[in-house]
Amino acid sequence: MLKMTYDQILDYLENNRLEQLKEKVNKLHPADTAQIINELPDEYQTLTFKLLNHEIASDVLPDLYDEVREEILENIQQNQLVKIIDEMETDEATDIISELEEEVSKEVLEKIDEEESRTIKQLLRYDEESAGGLMQTEIIAVYKSKKRDELIEYIRGNYEEVENIHYVFVIDDENKLIGILDLTKLLLARPERMAEDIMDKDVISVRVDLDQEQVANIFRKYDIYTLPVVDEENHLLGRITVDDIIDVIDEEASEDAYKMVGLESEDRVFTSPFSSVRKRLPWLTLNLFTALLVSSVVGIFEQTIARLSFLAVLMPIVAGLGGNSGIQTLTVITRGIALGELTIRNTYRAIYKEISVGLINGIIIGSCAMLIAYLLKGDIMLGVVLGSAMVCNMFIAGLVGSLIPIIMRMLKIDPALASSVIITMLTDIGGFASFLGLATVLLL
Amino acid sequence: MLKMTYDQILDYLENNRLEQLKEKVNKLHPADTAQIINELPDEYQTLTFKLLNHEIASDVLPDLYDEVREEILENIQQNQLVKIIDEMETDEATDIISELEEEVSKEVLEKIDEEESRTIKQLLRYDEESAGGLMQTEIIAVYKSKKRDELIEYIRGNYEEVENIHYVFVIDDENKLIGILDLTKLLLARPERMAEDIMDKDVISVRVDLDQEQVANIFRKYDIYTLPVVDEENHLLGRITVDDIIDVIDEEASEDAYKMVGLESEDRVFTSPFSSVRKRLPWLTLNLFTALLVSSVVGIFEQTIARLSFLAVLMPIVAGLGGNSGIQTLTVITRGIALGELTIRNTYRAIYKEISVGLINGIIIGSCAMLIAYLLKGDIMLGVVLGSAMVCNMFIAGLVGSLIPIIMRMLKIDPALASSVIITMLTDIGGFASFLGLATVLLL
Repeated sequence: MLKMTYDQILDYLENNRLEQLKEKVNKLHPADTAQIINELPDEYQTLTFKLLNHEIASDVLPDLYDEVREEILENIQQNQLVKIIDEMETDEATDIISELEEEVSKEVLEKIDEEESRTIKQLLRYDEESAGGLMQTEIIAVYKSKKRDELIEYIRGNYEEVENIHYVFVIDDENKLIGILDLTKLLLARPERMAEDIMDKDVISVRVDLDQEQVANIFRKYDIYTLPVVDEENHLLGRITVDDIIDVIDEEASEDAYKMVGLESEDRVFTSPFSSVRKRLPWLTLNLFTALLVSSVVGIFEQTIARLSFLAVLMPIVAGLGGNSGIQTLTVITRGIALGELTIRNTYRAIYKEISVGLINGIIIGSCAMLIAYLLKGDIMLGVVLGSAMVCNMFIAGLVGSLIPIIMRMLKIDPALASSVIITMLTDIGGFASFLGLATVLLL
Repeated sequence: MLKMTYDQILDYLENNRLEQLKEKVNKLHPADTAQIINELPDEYQTLTFKLLNHEIASDVLPDLYDEVREEILENIQQNQLVKIIDEMETDEATDIISELEEEVSKEVLEKIDEEESRTIKQLLRYDEESAGGLMQTEIIAVYKSKKRDELIEYIRGNYEEVENIHYVFVIDDENKLIGILDLTKLLLARPERMAEDIMDKDVISVRVDLDQEQVANIFRKYDIYTLPVVDEENHLLGRITVDDIIDVIDEEASEDAYKMVGLESEDRVFTSPFSSVRKRLPWLTLNLFTALLVSSVVGIFEQTIARLSFLAVLMPIVAGLGGNSGIQTLTVITRGIALGELTIRNTYRAIYKEISVGLINGIIIGSCAMLIAYLLKGDIMLGVVLGSAMVCNMFIAGLVGSLIPIIMRMLKIDPALASSVIITMLTDIGGFASFLGLATVLLL
């Protein structure tokens, strides 16, 4: 159905029927509009966006791909942008403002609603990837002594400002968070009941500086829908809602998958080729150097290869298996860290396990390889050399594949950066050195 | 803090102080208890679980790792299990029942609450990875003509049964879904208002047979908290809540990351070593065969290598860069498919883009390699051979890295299965064939 809509919109654009287009795009769900704009040819994206009324535009803008949004933000008139940002919730407005050039963002902050401007300036100070960077300040917070009907009237007065309320936060006189109140409970409460009588005192909250990955872990673990954010003295600052956490989870999963192979998050399917080239080149250059390092290790044994050229034929087997099992280990460990399963307490067990798996798999696969080499070349010693090198290599794979991300995590470097390049470099070096080294000793 | 609790619990267990332990674990949040049991030494896991009262146990059981749960389900008494399942919501009860051995599950289904049993038997028919497999049947559904106070009384009567209500579904006389009603609106409505007056008619719903990945995409896109599930005639069957979707998203992200390197989802950080070995061996065996294939291609050129042994020294450079840039492309495409960014409409653009990136990066990196080879060996032709092979190889990387997952998706095979093994086999073969082939022609 969305495909039909897309074709229709493209048709309007190509025939310059902007009036019909305007009517159409302002009636769609903003999420659908965003998806369509993302997929439109570049030259139509800004044009289509400009046809949206401010309220719709404020919902569409955050859902656009970063590159599309960047282009639109550069081409939109400032007074339009001000109106759009005025319609946004503070968390999204902050994200947009932080993407503007400094000069533009200053001007916009002066022109938008004064209170919102103050809040955004406050929010801009938090790290984008922390609880503070995720939270919105539009919340319903009530004093503990308020009675049911007063609460309802308070919600009525603030209903327009806060989307998806679901929960009311209960605070004391000092604005400290003391409880959370599900609207269902409020709906069923007797009139004389006060907030503190019906609230849940076991409220889970997070400090404003907590990293977004850990915030996501709290949502994962406790199956909650909204999470209050507090400062170090438990003053209520804002809330994070679960829909934003889904974005965080997607972002972190992409990031982990991407970092492991040296990609930047912004390198998406439809990032322009030149931008992708620029983003991938540094890693490929690093890769060229690690490959040269591996090559220089092989170079040590050039004389051996000159005399026994079939060693070169078998080299891809040693390298392939070691590299792939190293990346398997790396993936298990990185994912375990991301999902919060791997803690400092159980680190040794994890490394021990991966080494064992590498060793056992190495013995099994190495034996097969030994047999195959023997059958192909009729040389039992060659089989022994190949098999031993593979055991050695897959042991190294288990060791470096687990140890390196864990060490990096201890050093507070993102473990996903222990990318495949480093792991395969180490398994290649280990594999070739043991294979060609053993061959030099046993076969020459 | 949880670490302190863990140590304390382990201490109770080691000193056999089960009374204190029982008191402790029944006071914790079930999510914390689950995490602690997951991390306890194997011999204490079932013992600790058995100390939980049924309500807590019903919340802990779904949060355990599959292997831990399997062990516990085998060792728990049936009448205990029946009581625990009676406390569960239908979606979770169905998951647990589906994990039991057939005979046990039949017996349990006979003993639990009759209505719940009937519902679970119904739910068991849906594919586990479809909307039907995710939904729970505990919902608040009201007729459109009900007035506010009737609605509130209805919610009061069903409050105990349904967790996290937040929304009421509105149905007509035939049980067909016609709207959704945010509790906030109900709270603020005047008494004489009927459900159909205040409901939102633009309700987003899904068919019961929709795949869970697409269900997750709907949550992602529309930022919703709860999603009604209907049959082909729009009869309301149940709902899916966002907390279950977070599990789906994590599961799918792990699965994608895992499949790309040939891992099974159940191969976690603390899966036992032998179980991990068994799970990884088939893929490593496949890998051994692809490596043999690559090796046989190199074998064609054994005579060339025998005469020019430094070619073997340079081989890791060709293989490394091609393999890594192929995996980069594979990751971008697979992630684009997972997040729903890549559609049939824009496929050609994606392939074209990845080929361009591969080619441009190949020319840049290939030129560097050419220069390095020339500087090291003083042989301009050697540089040309190496550089050309790398351009060729990285072009192949862009082609197969994008084409293969896209073709697999068209054939309805999971694109993540176009794993690194296949891609690196193809880039290795392409790289070695062009490198050694060119060397044979130009250098001999």
